[in-house]
Amino acid sequence: MGDEKRNIVEPSILAGFMELLPEDQMLFNDMLDTIKKTYESFGFIPLDTPVIEKSEVLLAKSGGDTAKQVYRFNKGDNDLSLRFDLTVPLARYVAQHYGELTFPFRRYHIAKVYRGEKPQKGRFREFYQCDIDIIGNGSLNIINDAEIVSVIYSTFKALGFGDFTIMINNRKLLNGFFRSYNVTDALEVLRIVDKIDKAGADYVKEELAKMGLGADAIDAIMNLVGMSGSPLDIVAKLKEFDVADEDFKAGIDELEAVCSSIKALGVPDENFKLNLKIARGLDYYTGTVYETFLNDYPELGSVCSGGRYDELASNYTKQSLPGVGISIGFSRLFYQLKAAGIISNNGKATPSKIMLVPMDGTLDFTLAAASKLRAEGINTEVYLNSGKMGKKFTYANKLGIPYVGVIGDEEMAQNSVMLKDMVTGEQNLVAVDDISSEIK
Amino acid sequence: MGDEKRNIVEPSILAGFMELLPEDQMLFNDMLDTIKKTYESFGFIPLDTPVIEKSEVLLAKSGGDTAKQVYRFNKGDNDLSLRFDLTVPLARYVAQHYGELTFPFRRYHIAKVYRGEKPQKGRFREFYQCDIDIIGNGSLNIINDAEIVSVIYSTFKALGFGDFTIMINNRKLLNGFFRSYNVTDALEVLRIVDKIDKAGADYVKEELAKMGLGADAIDAIMNLVGMSGSPLDIVAKLKEFDVADEDFKAGIDELEAVCSSIKALGVPDENFKLNLKIARGLDYYTGTVYETFLNDYPELGSVCSGGRYDELASNYTKQSLPGVGISIGFSRLFYQLKAAGIISNNGKATPSKIMLVPMDGTLDFTLAAASKLRAEGINTEVYLNSGKMGKKFTYANKLGIPYVGVIGDEEMAQNSVMLKDMVTGEQNLVAVDDISSEIK
Repeated sequence: MGDEKRNIVEPSILAGFMELLPEDQMLFNDMLDTIKKTYESFGFIPLDTPVIEKSEVLLAKSGGDTAKQVYRFNKGDNDLSLRFDLTVPLARYVAQHYGELTFPFRRYHIAKVYRGEKPQKGRFREFYQCDIDIIGNGSLNIINDAEIVSVIYSTFKALGFGDFTIMINNRKLLNGFFRSYNVTDALEVLRIVDKIDKAGADYVKEELAKMGLGADAIDAIMNLVGMSGSPLDIVAKLKEFDVADEDFKAGIDELEAVCSSIKALGVPDENFKLNLKIARGLDYYTGTVYETFLNDYPELGSVCSGGRYDELASNYTKQSLPGVGISIGFSRLFYQLKAAGIISNNGKATPSKIMLVPMDGTLDFTLAAASKLRAEGINTEVYLNSGKMGKKFTYANKLGIPYVGVIGDEEMAQNSVMLKDMVTGEQNLVAVDDISSEIK
Repeated sequence: MGDEKRNIVEPSILAGFMELLPEDQMLFNDMLDTIKKTYESFGFIPLDTPVIEKSEVLLAKSGGDTAKQVYRFNKGDNDLSLRFDLTVPLARYVAQHYGELTFPFRRYHIAKVYRGEKPQKGRFREFYQCDIDIIGNGSLNIINDAEIVSVIYSTFKALGFGDFTIMINNRKLLNGFFRSYNVTDALEVLRIVDKIDKAGADYVKEELAKMGLGADAIDAIMNLVGMSGSPLDIVAKLKEFDVADEDFKAGIDELEAVCSSIKALGVPDENFKLNLKIARGLDYYTGTVYETFLNDYPELGSVCSGGRYDELASNYTKQSLPGVGISIGFSRLFYQLKAAGIISNNGKATPSKIMLVPMDGTLDFTLAAASKLRAEGINTEVYLNSGKMGKKFTYANKLGIPYVGVIGDEEMAQNSVMLKDMVTGEQNLVAVDDISSEIK
């Protein structure tokens, strides 16, 4: 540095962008890794697409709010946009590489997406999505919709959550039902019906009447969304409804097949419900829809949602590519779980399992021991800076390294280390050859 | 689709952006995962920073070519830039979170960076870098520079490369040497000297003379870069040089300590050389520098480079933060290795280890068997679309799934599957309980 004058720029990041300290980053990565491994256990193939795409391609369909949120800019002659989800890039990818892919195409994609939303607590402009989709060529068996529920169940189970509920519904059933009662704004009806637990049945009936619905329609709606029981019980009751619409019937058949296979896949009854009130806002869902709630934290909203769509890539190809998929908005979920104190990394801020500390004259021996441990699969670091022993242990403590091995002349003479368990405080002379079995 | 008219946009991505098909993507991810695991085996902590940063922060120092290549744009009132490397974000991160980090701070970062270079074969505008750095607070022991070589060695070994050479040099030594001979343009000298193998010693001497160097300087330079032998042999010879410069001597001492510890860390002699011709172009290296070459593919250039720098974050803080680190430009390396036919995934295009195929009436049994296998750690998919058996086996073949288990009534009655090894073609009835031990 000397006396050279420097122009210091205040280091900071943009509002609405997440950046974590090591302990949280380790936890974040561990959880993402759990999601990845679960997705792979179902044979989903990893995909990676460019963050920057041509605006004319990426925004082929989008309008309104989405378009406003997109990070769009020019570089040279190119009109560029950052992806705002992983579904549009999937549609583009499948259409572009149609001839080179094997269908059904099962892919997962865990990556960052960008939306220039108004920054607010827990909402991020750059965030991770964890998506899976199964894309058929021309058709896609309905049992895939059941498998998706098994993926959601396995994922949240693997993440350590016990008490969660996956809710499914079917848009065909809803569309057919509402059509047969001449309800044109089904989403508005569902928005009103969603208040039933908080505001009561009478309030909901009044609001529906204000929409101009007749008494028979209101009765049928209250009957539809008021059903309780196991998914297959509800399916049985639905079959008795006096609704002739073909979509309604097709929706019931789909729900029946899906619910039956979900049972076969071993998803416990308590983690899975049929909920005829959910629809997902997005227009493109055409069959099964999913939402997932952590029972003890309903305020988080749905932590994993998705559904079935008839045409994934109609903007990019004339091929019929039906699919079904889900997405976890992971950055927001992580933020919420942390804020609610539900998850923690117990001070673990490094992958290191052990830190070796050489004393005078034992450096080479220590370096060789570290290489040996790494070869045995033990994440190992060596504390190389000089200084007092207390400072070195403080370093290990701050990072949550579970073991420290000090190597002085005596330890070296016995081909050993003085191994300290940083949790219990216990200390023992352990042969270098025995360390990995001792701490594994 | 019906007869609705659609406006089809040709699906394509921007020039200079990499996108892989499943088989290559699997290989790409496996290699990245190997790098990650090796970095973690040395106790490096994962870091993730925003892709988009404030231009005033990210470009605090940059000028010239770098600034021209940056993807920079406005959104609202914000002047934004995409990161063009992982080192500047590290500097910003360490300065910003200085009080919350534990030093020495050992971090790795594997992520995409963006440079709007002229697109050309094997050069990408969006590419992965795999970086490690060790940052000291005020000082950083020189033995860290040796550990970096051990990381490079372990990484390329783990990636399956046997025949590679890590070359190191020291900028202090070079600076002191050239200063003592009044050579002002050291990098130009090294550029000329680099041609010695191709153009011969006489050519090099002539070119150096054209630069205005005297005979004694030229002799000394030819002597310096012409030395052969083991790293410690060369260090011994350097000590006999008649150069009084303090930096030259400090550089020799550093090289000696580093070479000695590299030996202790178990890096084989054949994978590590002292090369006094390398300097790395970047101004900010101040001590040890690294380059790595695959011996059979010298045309790839250095596949892993880096060095020691005195001040990581002088644009963002007055704290003295010396560091040492390396970077692998992975997308380019992957492209080159693929193009040269050095790496292949042998047809493996999915994480699935086994595909189960239900026949009529065995769907529920098959779904339950799949869940059981997944719980046992076997990546399992179920082929759910209807169709001829041949088509199903073709699907498995195309994706390189190693085992297929067909389940008809008879197999189900025996709680078994007809298991086909897709490589040998062998087929056996195997109990569901035995599948995982059979195929693991």
